[in-house]
Amino acid sequence: MANKRIMKNQIIVLLLVSMLVSGFSMQTKKKIIFFGDSITQAAVETNGYIKRMDSILQQKGQDKNYELAGAGISSNKVYDLYLRMDDDVLAKNPNAVVIFIGVNDVWHKRTSGTGTDPDKFERFYNAIIKKLKDKNISVYLCTPAAIGEKTDVTNPLDGDLNLYASIVRKIAKNNGCALIDLRQAFLDHLKANNPDNKDRGILTTDGVHLNRAGNIFVAQQMYHVLSKDFIK
Amino acid sequence: MANKRIMKNQIIVLLLVSMLVSGFSMQTKKKIIFFGDSITQAAVETNGYIKRMDSILQQKGQDKNYELAGAGISSNKVYDLYLRMDDDVLAKNPNAVVIFIGVNDVWHKRTSGTGTDPDKFERFYNAIIKKLKDKNISVYLCTPAAIGEKTDVTNPLDGDLNLYASIVRKIAKNNGCALIDLRQAFLDHLKANNPDNKDRGILTTDGVHLNRAGNIFVAQQMYHVLSKDFIK
Amino acid sequence: MANKRIMKNQIIVLLLVSMLVSGFSMQTKKKIIFFGDSITQAAVETNGYIKRMDSILQQKGQDKNYELAGAGISSNKVYDLYLRMDDDVLAKNPNAVVIFIGVNDVWHKRTSGTGTDPDKFERFYNAIIKKLKDKNISVYLCTPAAIGEKTDVTNPLDGDLNLYASIVRKIAKNNGCALIDLRQAFLDHLKANNPDNKDRGILTTDGVHLNRAGNIFVAQQMYHVLSKDFIK
Amino acid sequence: MANKRIMKNQIIVLLLVSMLVSGFSMQTKKKIIFFGDSITQAAVETNGYIKRMDSILQQKGQDKNYELAGAGISSNKVYDLYLRMDDDVLAKNPNAVVIFIGVNDVWHKRTSGTGTDPDKFERFYNAIIKKLKDKNISVYLCTPAAIGEKTDVTNPLDGDLNLYASIVRKIAKNNGCALIDLRQAFLDHLKANNPDNKDRGILTTDGVHLNRAGNIFVAQQMYHVLSKDFIK
Repeated sequence: MANKRIMKNQIIVLLLVSMLVSGFSMQTKKKIIFFGDSITQAAVETNGYIKRMDSILQQKGQDKNYELAGAGISSNKVYDLYLRMDDDVLAKNPNAVVIFIGVNDVWHKRTSGTGTDPDKFERFYNAIIKKLKDKNISVYLCTPAAIGEKTDVTNPLDGDLNLYASIVRKIAKNNGCALIDLRQAFLDHLKANNPDNKDRGILTTDGVHLNRAGNIFVAQQMYHVLSKDFIK
Repeated sequence: MANKRIMKNQIIVLLLVSMLVSGFSMQTKKKIIFFGDSITQAAVETNGYIKRMDSILQQKGQDKNYELAGAGISSNKVYDLYLRMDDDVLAKNPNAVVIFIGVNDVWHKRTSGTGTDPDKFERFYNAIIKKLKDKNISVYLCTPAAIGEKTDVTNPLDGDLNLYASIVRKIAKNNGCALIDLRQAFLDHLKANNPDNKDRGILTTDGVHLNRAGNIFVAQQMYHVLSKDFIK
Repeated sequence: MANKRIMKNQIIVLLLVSMLVSGFSMQTKKKIIFFGDSITQAAVETNGYIKRMDSILQQKGQDKNYELAGAGISSNKVYDLYLRMDDDVLAKNPNAVVIFIGVNDVWHKRTSGTGTDPDKFERFYNAIIKKLKDKNISVYLCTPAAIGEKTDVTNPLDGDLNLYASIVRKIAKNNGCALIDLRQAFLDHLKANNPDNKDRGILTTDGVHLNRAGNIFVAQQMYHVLSKDFIK
Repeated sequence: MANKRIMKNQIIVLLLVSMLVSGFSMQTKKKIIFFGDSITQAAVETNGYIKRMDSILQQKGQDKNYELAGAGISSNKVYDLYLRMDDDVLAKNPNAVVIFIGVNDVWHKRTSGTGTDPDKFERFYNAIIKKLKDKNISVYLCTPAAIGEKTDVTNPLDGDLNLYASIVRKIAKNNGCALIDLRQAFLDHLKANNPDNKDRGILTTDGVHLNRAGNIFVAQQMYHVLSKDFIK
């Protein structure tokens, strides 16, 4: 009887200790939310860029400290992010948010007449950052990567996409946010790896959405910037 | 001396009373802000629809109780109103706001590729109303009136404009807001007064912006609805 | 020997007569080419409107005298017809041509920025008709039927489609061509048969392309007009 | 009396000779038509590029042999040239035609939804060249120069304009036509002369239409190519 009681007590103590330990580890695991459009929606699938970042974290033995979550919805533009950020981001208490938006703000001008004016793009982007910073969330900004992979600047929306990429760079600078310059990284990579001037197939399946190589590439670019200060 | 002192006191009392009276009258003058695009921006000019409403109030002897103010900016769409409503509307403590928006949300699809998706139009419109109602401000919604005045449904954007007008009607119903159905009023008026099926010149100068008759017509439509409950 | 030679001669005579007869029947079979976009491209498939017209001709016992052929290519606009009419129409020596074009001239304004200006639509349409008439080919014009089936004039492109339908009516009148007014027929039919104001599913699968009922309906409309003078 | 009569005869002979001479020179004057849009419409005005080319010819003493004529109409796209070439070009029997088109084929995608698909652009361009060559007219092709003068490839339509410039280069090659590569010349000139990355004001007034310097520049580019074989 006495032994049983002692065992019981020991079990309770062990449970308490394990709860405590797991509780601490849960508390110290930092949450990173990736906030974007269809490219990010696909990123949580097998071989998606978020899964790839998970793999990198595992390789580096950093996976116990970070939790990655996707918040991408197909066809989103900057003001869609603004409209749903309370529910999809703030309610989940992230420590960092990686914003990857802008392709549809340009693309939809051509495909449905409902793209975003440059000045409104900037205003909504700033409004999102303000809300995140007010909660002490670290914010990382990605430039929109590509609408077409040709390297001779004849992808029809190259000029406009470059313009929105330059706006994101300005926003990052003005807000003191770290920049993940996917647009520049894509241009550099394609210059070296697209000798036939193809409009798709190197980093994307269709000029916009990432293929296997593209997801790996984006994960590496993001890890590179996040590991400078946030991921340790 | 005594008389002088009495006179002084009398003057002071008169001043206090007049200050009090004018103070009360200032407090009781209700402010109505008209919130919209270039149509409303022009409404504060001579013969503009806000000036016309002022005239109606004067005729009815109601001008001492109401103050009308314009908050229209050229090329605005629904999310422009959202972005500037704190500064341009809430900061001015209105008692009522008349929202007159939607033409550019449709028109800019055709002229710059940056119109507004119907579902986003509704979400931003609802967000504006929520912010106003949270401050106990009375809200009046106008359907967008016209992009072209032809009566045989061949104005190129008639279908889309009807769609956005129907969305505004739904928003008004869902939020319990009074509706000023300018779209329907224009269609009815033009049916009767545009026998040559002209695309401009009856109520507008260019199919969109109000001419003299159009400003009078809009003022009447607005007064008609506002005088049902707000203006007394 | 003599009998054999007589038989041979008889066979030769029979062959010649049968060739002659079939030759005559070939000469008298009148060819009708349906010239258009994806709606017409699908019309040669099972249950397509050209197959349905074939069935009507069989029912009426008129199929021996008429040959129906499709010349529809997906995404075509009026100037695509103009560019390929020598190869796809004139080279095949039709007796009549039914032109069914206009949906993409309107629709592509919204979906790719490459619709057709109204005045150019008219000029290319007239140029097509002139080339056909110069060869004494009977020409029938169809108004574009639908982009969305809603009956409350809130299909976004209703106004523009009505405009192009009115241009086709004018072109028919100016050139003395018979008109198959599918737009009006659709509007009338939908008014009576779309009580729930659905945007598809009554005569189309997607608002534009014909479903089973739509193909039957279009075949009937075309037969109705063609049987007034051309099909007897 | 006799002297007077002799003088009269001498005068008549002189007049006849001078008429003859001028008649001959009129016959041998070669006509060059500049065929394009609003940029070419403005080129016949004072300081326009056609007037500037006239000045160059005068400086070189070549103006007696060449006659320059403008055939530019505002808002024209490639198929507008096709539709009016019989009246505006062929009827005037030119010896050479300089085609300068393409800006609106790209621009109107954004501003009215009625730009030109790349493949149709090429087909109509080829059809124009064929008609000119059938009349033994020398044909010179210009790439579209600019929609915005910024040098960091952020003019919104840079990509699409580069694409259409590349199509013109291909058409010139395929048809054995001399190329006046204004697009490349503008890019090179602006790289060197637009250090502040302005979107207008170096060679254009508004990013598209030529200013004084732009008209001189275009005249020089055209003279440079035409003087290689046609102007001597």
